Amino acid sequence: MSSAADRDNDEPKRRGRRRNGADTKSALLTAAREVFAEQGYESATVRTIAGRAGVDPAMVNHWFGGKEGLFLAAMRIPVNPADLVPELLDGPPEELAERILRRFVSVWDGAGGGQFAALVRSVAGNEIAVSMLRDFVRNVLFNRLLQELGSDRPDLRVALCATQVVGLGMARYVIHLEPLASADVDTIVSSIAPNLQRYLTGDLGEVTFA
Amino acid sequence: MSSAADRDNDEPKRRGRRRNGADTKSALLTAAREVFAEQGYESATVRTIAGRAGVDPAMVNHWFGGKEGLFLAAMRIPVNPADLVPELLDGPPEELAERILRRFVSVWDGAGGGQFAALVRSVAGNEIAVSMLRDFVRNVLFNRLLQELGSDRPDLRVALCATQVVGLGMARYVIHLEPLASADVDTIVSSIAPNLQRYLTGDLGEVTFA
Repeated sequence: MSSAADRDNDEPKRRGRRRNGADTKSALLTAAREVFAEQGYESATVRTIAGRAGVDPAMVNHWFGGKEGLFLAAMRIPVNPADLVPELLDGPPEELAERILRRFVSVWDGAGGGQFAALVRSVAGNEIAVSMLRDFVRNVLFNRLLQELGSDRPDLRVALCATQVVGLGMARYVIHLEPLASADVDTIVSSIAPNLQRYLTGDLGEVTFA
Repeated sequence: MSSAADRDNDEPKRRGRRRNGADTKSALLTAAREVFAEQGYESATVRTIAGRAGVDPAMVNHWFGGKEGLFLAAMRIPVNPADLVPELLDGPPEELAERILRRFVSVWDGAGGGQFAALVRSVAGNEIAVSMLRDFVRNVLFNRLLQELGSDRPDLRVALCATQVVGLGMARYVIHLEPLASADVDTIVSSIAPNLQRYLTGDLGEVTFA
């Protein structure tokens, strides 16, 4: 992570012109998309991205709170999954699916559905973006949730949860499939939460439903 | 639909050069993607598409069996959903989800997973492609299945089924999320079929699972 000390580092002074905040943020986002795509999330450094953007590395902390926040902004993800974990775990485990669905819908509805479609576009065309997003969401969100719950077969549960949550996003925000596209969150919860809850804590074996 | 009679129609003779079969198919697919995107599935005619491609309209029947087949090929959908309905309905209703999942995985695994990602890319960036695909799949596949089953709330069931099936495709073919990306079909069926079956024939109300 960069710090204010980076202002006095040995990087060459970049293009002389001053930028305002909007310019700086925009330049950092563009550079971040390029550098993350080229190098992956782990290898990309704040200094490299700031260098590409022609701005001081300290601006990454200033505007995005660090590399993780810059990544989320660059991928247009409107919430930090890490911030969600405590909130999602605050309640009965048998209602976790309902809490996940309410939060998912409020985050993406709030961001405007077009942002989910933009994320899908960027991911579907880009194996590196796919792998970054996959590792990030799995490690930061679902694995932590499942550890807290102590579930068996966590990898399979994570993947199954992803099918349902991503599929809901596709139906609501990309395919615009009615009645889900304009359903209120209570309809979504009552119809989908039981399925998602089975993936989180239910029996994954030879379960049969009438 | 065009027919052999179209060979003798009043369209002007197009570019004089002869094409071989591969050229003709390729020109028709390119023209179809353009014309379907411009005019939508219903308005686009075989004659317009053939005209754009500079080939005889009869070639659409010859190579694709008609407009529906040309649409599926243009969208890179490796199977005609209409052909699946009798097969999917041949068996106990309570095992319909299992049959859908087995067929979905065999079709897209067989086509090479990249084709699903290509479909998602083309759809996520194109509202017209979304609307064509949405109407086509809903009308041709799921509505017909649910009519046969006589289910209540068919629109909601269709949309819910889509969340699960599309979400599985995203996890397996786009995000490559293990263990689902390389799971055998039996694992997919035992873990996902109960959820899909609830969407098809189960109680969508205030169902709760332990």
